[in-house]
Amino acid sequence: MGSVHAQAGRTAHEVLSDTRSLVEPAMRSAVDTLPESMRHIAGYHLGWWGRDGDTAGATAGGKALRPALVLLTAKATNAIAAAVPAAVAVELAHNSTLLHDDVIDGDHTRRHRLTAWSVFGVGDAILAGGALLTLASTMLADIEPRASRLLGDAMQRLLDGQHIDIAFERESTVDLATCERMSLAKTGALMGCACALGCLVSGGDDERVEHFRRFGEHLGLAFQHTDDVLGIWGDPAVTGKPVYSDLRNRKKSLPVVYALTSGTPEGQELAEVLRSNTESRAELAHAARLVDDAGGRAWSRTQADDLLTHAARTALGVAASGGRSGADDAGDARRPSRSLRAERRNRCPVSTS
Amino acid sequence: MGSVHAQAGRTAHEVLSDTRSLVEPAMRSAVDTLPESMRHIAGYHLGWWGRDGDTAGATAGGKALRPALVLLTAKATNAIAAAVPAAVAVELAHNSTLLHDDVIDGDHTRRHRLTAWSVFGVGDAILAGGALLTLASTMLADIEPRASRLLGDAMQRLLDGQHIDIAFERESTVDLATCERMSLAKTGALMGCACALGCLVSGGDDERVEHFRRFGEHLGLAFQHTDDVLGIWGDPAVTGKPVYSDLRNRKKSLPVVYALTSGTPEGQELAEVLRSNTESRAELAHAARLVDDAGGRAWSRTQADDLLTHAARTALGVAASGGRSGADDAGDARRPSRSLRAERRNRCPVSTS
Repeated sequence: MGSVHAQAGRTAHEVLSDTRSLVEPAMRSAVDTLPESMRHIAGYHLGWWGRDGDTAGATAGGKALRPALVLLTAKATNAIAAAVPAAVAVELAHNSTLLHDDVIDGDHTRRHRLTAWSVFGVGDAILAGGALLTLASTMLADIEPRASRLLGDAMQRLLDGQHIDIAFERESTVDLATCERMSLAKTGALMGCACALGCLVSGGDDERVEHFRRFGEHLGLAFQHTDDVLGIWGDPAVTGKPVYSDLRNRKKSLPVVYALTSGTPEGQELAEVLRSNTESRAELAHAARLVDDAGGRAWSRTQADDLLTHAARTALGVAASGGRSGADDAGDARRPSRSLRAERRNRCPVSTS
Repeated sequence: MGSVHAQAGRTAHEVLSDTRSLVEPAMRSAVDTLPESMRHIAGYHLGWWGRDGDTAGATAGGKALRPALVLLTAKATNAIAAAVPAAVAVELAHNSTLLHDDVIDGDHTRRHRLTAWSVFGVGDAILAGGALLTLASTMLADIEPRASRLLGDAMQRLLDGQHIDIAFERESTVDLATCERMSLAKTGALMGCACALGCLVSGGDDERVEHFRRFGEHLGLAFQHTDDVLGIWGDPAVTGKPVYSDLRNRKKSLPVVYALTSGTPEGQELAEVLRSNTESRAELAHAARLVDDAGGRAWSRTQADDLLTHAARTALGVAASGGRSGADDAGDARRPSRSLRAERRNRCPVSTS
């Protein structure tokens, strides 16, 4: 069970793989408690079986990033067992949002195959999202009310972030601070919750839990930067999304908004291309170049690095002080301090590919 | 606070009105904790304000039937205060399903005005449904894990019922037992949960809680029969739905399925009318007459009466025995015993109009 805990030289791939083998049996047991209708759709969405419920239709599921955060932040090895239900709950809540997201965005594919609503219809996908959210809440209530409240708060922020994301589609201009706030809410909130829960089940006090929540938020925003870069330049064979997916959908992602608000000629030209109805691959490739030339790609990479460095310092500070961070995490979690930029180090310890 | 408790001669209207005045302030406080985006949509849906957040746009909200059940089943007057958060949670969970239902059914109006998705879009309505469900779960987790589990179980059954309801749309024939099971899950489960919660917060043991849950299920199925009759013959000015609404939508409601499976010539003719694409008022009026002539309307009324009589006997039995029902509620809650039909008495104590 302790194999998830950090050992020198373990890769992110190994951590995630270990997490999946630890969490998946518990997740299957939890999903097995659902009525057959909801279990069927959930299992399809999670990649466990095909549309007819056959295991031949199984595929690789999600990365299990959030459960990994719960387990990694569970301080002591003997807290891992207690952390598993929390890890399952966070992953179920995450997947409930994916089921709804795919409906909202009208996305036909996820993880290289048809989305649940494309197979079972919009109605059943909405219902299955509710089933997973309900299951997640019930599991956390069984741990303790604070666990339930952590998820509740994270979900409300996440939903607000998704609302802003939807509102962006109707707006021609979006300011960068709002875009960062949206990303922090949409992705950071639940990753913060994952880390906070890991700390909570290890017996952490409220202050320590809050430190870990912020740490997870930083990681989440870093992850979103990386994910947004992949949403434009990612290899479709790896991401499972069409090439230039986010540009095709006119998504106001972090690097795109940076470029649009850069005040550069490239940013202006990008705005024009995105205003047009083009879906031609050549035009989208041109738009991607414009995001790059306007500095959007480099900015997102720098931001991701800064946030990760900051998160790592926070975590080390918490570990060293036994509760209090030695780093500057008392400040606004939303913006990594500029001084940290000079200290950039290695890349993301948790691969998003 | 004790005014909600039964006093001789109090009408259902008065009980519901008292419930609303007791529960609504707490519900507003709970909804006020949501992010502004979700609060705004929830408040519109709940009838508290118009699309712009102005109280001038307020309208009458829901009937507050489920919160009334929580309060009425809270045994002692001094348990009412403890019951209010549970009542709020159940009403929020119920409204989360309405927000999603309206999306799923593509309904444009509810309670005499535009549905939330028609005003704010499908995406925001799905998100707001998630926000209310999350809020409900968190509130119950604060009471105790059993409360959370009662809602969890009820929601899963409700979602399964809604799934079956959706599946019915694709099927040309539906058997009556499946239709009753669907209605019990879709409506009975959450009403059962409401009654169980009222008992739980009053300190009822597991056995007593289970009795109240079944009692609420019976009430819920009776309510669904009455609601289905209103869905065909209800006055649009009262129901807020178009005339012959359920026939227009080809809804396989209880009286309709009874008629379709009656083996009568009227039932056969009804099947033909519903297979056609007609939306003409004259044709729908004819279809309504066919449901009536095939016995669907009378059957639903009898069923509602039987279920209510049965529920009343269960409740009286529980009250008299201090935990055990004196009636035959140890049997299958899904079907009122035939012997009860002879004992039909007065109409529904809780008006659905």
